[in-house]
Amino acid sequence: MKMRLVTFHEGEGHRLGCLDGDRVIDLNRACRAWLKAEGNPRSEALADAWVPKEITPFLQGGEESLKQAEKAVEYVREHGDRLPPGTVHSREAVRLAAPVPAPGKILCVGLNYRDHIREMGREEPEFPVIFAKFANTVIGPGDEIPLPPVTEKLDYEAEFAFVIGRRTKNVSRDEALDYVAGYTIVNDVSARDLQKRTIQWLQGKTLDGSAPMGPCLVTRDEIPDPGNLEIALWVNGEERQRSNTRQLVFDVARLVEFLSELMTLEPGDVICTGTPGGVGFARKPPVFLNDGDRVRIEVESIGVLENRVRAEGRNHRGTAESISAANR
Amino acid sequence: MKMRLVTFHEGEGHRLGCLDGDRVIDLNRACRAWLKAEGNPRSEALADAWVPKEITPFLQGGEESLKQAEKAVEYVREHGDRLPPGTVHSREAVRLAAPVPAPGKILCVGLNYRDHIREMGREEPEFPVIFAKFANTVIGPGDEIPLPPVTEKLDYEAEFAFVIGRRTKNVSRDEALDYVAGYTIVNDVSARDLQKRTIQWLQGKTLDGSAPMGPCLVTRDEIPDPGNLEIALWVNGEERQRSNTRQLVFDVARLVEFLSELMTLEPGDVICTGTPGGVGFARKPPVFLNDGDRVRIEVESIGVLENRVRAEGRNHRGTAESISAANR
Repeated sequence: MKMRLVTFHEGEGHRLGCLDGDRVIDLNRACRAWLKAEGNPRSEALADAWVPKEITPFLQGGEESLKQAEKAVEYVREHGDRLPPGTVHSREAVRLAAPVPAPGKILCVGLNYRDHIREMGREEPEFPVIFAKFANTVIGPGDEIPLPPVTEKLDYEAEFAFVIGRRTKNVSRDEALDYVAGYTIVNDVSARDLQKRTIQWLQGKTLDGSAPMGPCLVTRDEIPDPGNLEIALWVNGEERQRSNTRQLVFDVARLVEFLSELMTLEPGDVICTGTPGGVGFARKPPVFLNDGDRVRIEVESIGVLENRVRAEGRNHRGTAESISAANR
Repeated sequence: MKMRLVTFHEGEGHRLGCLDGDRVIDLNRACRAWLKAEGNPRSEALADAWVPKEITPFLQGGEESLKQAEKAVEYVREHGDRLPPGTVHSREAVRLAAPVPAPGKILCVGLNYRDHIREMGREEPEFPVIFAKFANTVIGPGDEIPLPPVTEKLDYEAEFAFVIGRRTKNVSRDEALDYVAGYTIVNDVSARDLQKRTIQWLQGKTLDGSAPMGPCLVTRDEIPDPGNLEIALWVNGEERQRSNTRQLVFDVARLVEFLSELMTLEPGDVICTGTPGGVGFARKPPVFLNDGDRVRIEVESIGVLENRVRAEGRNHRGTAESISAANR
């Protein structure tokens, strides 16, 4: 099933959609409309079960949910003139959220680009370095990356990411891709001063809003070879990172195998595969992100993720005002 | 509000309760019964809103939810003879789950016991070392700790833990305890070989079932001074760890302040405050957990958490059978 899944804002909540040219189709409403047109007396309940309005239960529905969503899209394409309101939006009319707004796990891989490892004169690692971010980090395309007063060294990391589609444990490399729903882009924003003030990186990796994700989740079938995709990042239009996923030491299949030996992977888990050379702190002299900077990442066959940095003042302690946009 | 909150299994799901002597009171059903007896025409909807059947939305309800739960408990104590089925269970009749079965974040603190730091001849750290576990690690009292083939060095870590009760960002140390719901025990089970095979500990810290938690969540008011609690751990009856939370370098209030400067803390987030000396890998010679070992942790004013270790065979790859108990 080939589809470019998105999550978009509506009212206070999120809805699952797919990109269709310059339109966004609301998949749950499309499925309801299709089943209703077929005269199905339980169209709403069935549509809600097969094609729920949020991404995680949709992924839990597996191939069956994807198949129903695809039929609903076909229906929309053929019956554009008599669809209920809210079924189709123009791309410009919706505000995208991250395709997976609340992953159960965000697993990140450290040094994983071969060209970058060579450039730094290091050996290829025997095991991937794995670290965590929590869901408080996730923001969508176009959302602002908070630059809080606690850090003076905020940095970018362009990453090709994949999303788990089926629960698995101990899967072999050969079968691993069957458990991948698809691919997206994550900016693994990192506060270098906090990352390095102790021996564990977490405190520099899980600031609110430090995982811009998107613009869409491209289903697995759309990208037959995830091991040959150009990836690049620009700050204010200046290219800072460029590589290709063929440089990954641990590729998607190997990472699924490796991680699933450690823990059960669940639909909606996001794995960030690491960043190429060119990050700010490794430049000479080092450069960090400032208020107003525009960070743009492009990954071939997926799209463009762009976010602007916004410096936060020190807010009143403990009050609602000080809770970042990522959590509102 | 003083209460010993528990989560227990019922059918395929979980329900929130509280310990009341040798009984477990189902708080949602107690609240329904109380409101119904008062003649409230919307007793079920109101009870579900105030005292939901799961811990996270209950904590999100804050003081109001706790107050309603307390009134419901009073009603049960006074009307024990005419309660609907399922409102009260004997303690032995229910199987406890972890008090917070699916935390949004599990934040762990590294070396944090002063006596242990001195004994190892180190300096007190300036900043806490923070690392992560994901919710796949959580199991309940009495559940088996899986010992999977991927590790040969599984180890215990007795930890005093606290649970966030109100969303907060940038809270000061003085106000920090207002944001704590209460206290529990976590065994931060660690695979030392995996923890140390790369520079980041995560892969040794987030194995399925590696965070036994419980037996209950003791609300904040029951423990006026969380900075003076005895903590001890036994393996097969042999004492291996003993200390007191007054030895914590970073206490509960300081950890809330510190973490909330980095990220928004949410109701149900669990923070494990670190482990005293005496872990298996630091013993001479090192000892690790084996199939059948009983690990018992006691923390003063909270209770006892006991779990047995169970060695797992290598199961069929990628199949449902290989998914651990922690995720079923």
